[in-house]
Amino acid sequence: MKPIPLCWRIVLVRPRNPLNIGAAARALANFGLRELVVVKPYGPVWQETRSAVGAEEILKSARAVEKLEEAIGDANWVVGTTTGSRRTLDRHLIPLTDFARWLRRRKARGRAALLFGSEKTGLSNEHLSYCHGLVRIPTAAHCPSMNLGQAVALFCYELARSGALSVPLPAPKVDRSQPANAQSLEHVLERAARVLGHAGYFKPKTRASQLIKLRRFLLDLGLSSNDARVLGGVLAQVEWKIESAGG
Amino acid sequence: MKPIPLCWRIVLVRPRNPLNIGAAARALANFGLRELVVVKPYGPVWQETRSAVGAEEILKSARAVEKLEEAIGDANWVVGTTTGSRRTLDRHLIPLTDFARWLRRRKARGRAALLFGSEKTGLSNEHLSYCHGLVRIPTAAHCPSMNLGQAVALFCYELARSGALSVPLPAPKVDRSQPANAQSLEHVLERAARVLGHAGYFKPKTRASQLIKLRRFLLDLGLSSNDARVLGGVLAQVEWKIESAGG
Repeated sequence: MKPIPLCWRIVLVRPRNPLNIGAAARALANFGLRELVVVKPYGPVWQETRSAVGAEEILKSARAVEKLEEAIGDANWVVGTTTGSRRTLDRHLIPLTDFARWLRRRKARGRAALLFGSEKTGLSNEHLSYCHGLVRIPTAAHCPSMNLGQAVALFCYELARSGALSVPLPAPKVDRSQPANAQSLEHVLERAARVLGHAGYFKPKTRASQLIKLRRFLLDLGLSSNDARVLGGVLAQVEWKIESAGG
Repeated sequence: MKPIPLCWRIVLVRPRNPLNIGAAARALANFGLRELVVVKPYGPVWQETRSAVGAEEILKSARAVEKLEEAIGDANWVVGTTTGSRRTLDRHLIPLTDFARWLRRRKARGRAALLFGSEKTGLSNEHLSYCHGLVRIPTAAHCPSMNLGQAVALFCYELARSGALSVPLPAPKVDRSQPANAQSLEHVLERAARVLGHAGYFKPKTRASQLIKLRRFLLDLGLSSNDARVLGGVLAQVEWKIESAGG
């Protein structure tokens, strides 16, 4: 089975229990992953994270960031994890056991970020709107939600098991046919939002949820790096025209 | 893929951290396993074990026993888990990813016990001598040892993933062609040890390690329930003869 040329980053969003950060780091080390990013760790949590056996290196180089965008900006693939049990999701959930096949079908390569939500609430709808795919561990219906450290370990194991780990990065150059990374999509979205704002598209009350829908829509288009560049250019032109006309 | 008709019991031998017992229980619940036995838990550990989310039932029905034999007596298959890194083992280690194939090749059915050693030391050579097979999680060489709770979760996931879970028990009757359970093998071993003792086989200093070797030898014979009954009868006859002659 040919390996999938992806370089993975594990992203913990707002974890509460320092033991879980340590356990996650150890699981990364166990399976040869290297990159851990923690989004908005609860203040004391981040400092308390004890060095987990064998994972000192990973914890030392782990980054803490304020916003999810900083954690996934350069990723071509963003994948969210969810039990899918607590909210009505209108999206397909990929069983973890099929995840490698899903990646292979898309000829995924480059940088990939795997998001885990906080112990209590999981990932929010806004977090999920950044994700190309949502993966679910096939757990029993009467006890679907897993411990965070254990869930991270299962993903690392499954990625290793199915040849979806590639360290170091497969190709130094930008692959234009791959999905645009999260940062350039976000730039397109911001520009589109400004244009739509000028056009009176948003209602103050629903602006946030409208943006989430737009992000989903944009993601589902499956824009390549090149597409995002072209679309960004088009929107910049429209924005310029509206502003100069309206000014 | 046809399911493997095994009913699994997870056995934690001398765990030190109550959080790990809770995490193990939760992993069982996540994947639909039910039976947890803890051998010689450190006193306070067992009482402190907090109910893990969704695993209250499993923790309530979990048994604490004094000796490993009590935990595995009725098991047709006993499997040990090990990182294989801390001692020179002269036995083949089955990678977890091949475990289901290994079970299928042996047409395993009935009761199976999966042993996990303590966080610090893993399973001892004596514990391992009870095992029909030893399984290893294929971890990275520079960080091979996993957190206990995470390791249990990986095994539960892999058993579920590969169709090796069967709840409830597949057959109420004793299958005579299946391996003799641990208790009947232990009876045979005890009888053999008495006979060999009469014959002057043991040296006081090495008796313990000689017994471990004998147990391994007996296990490797792959005796069925029926074989164990026959061999037990033969040994009883020899024992009677020696005792009545020697007395």
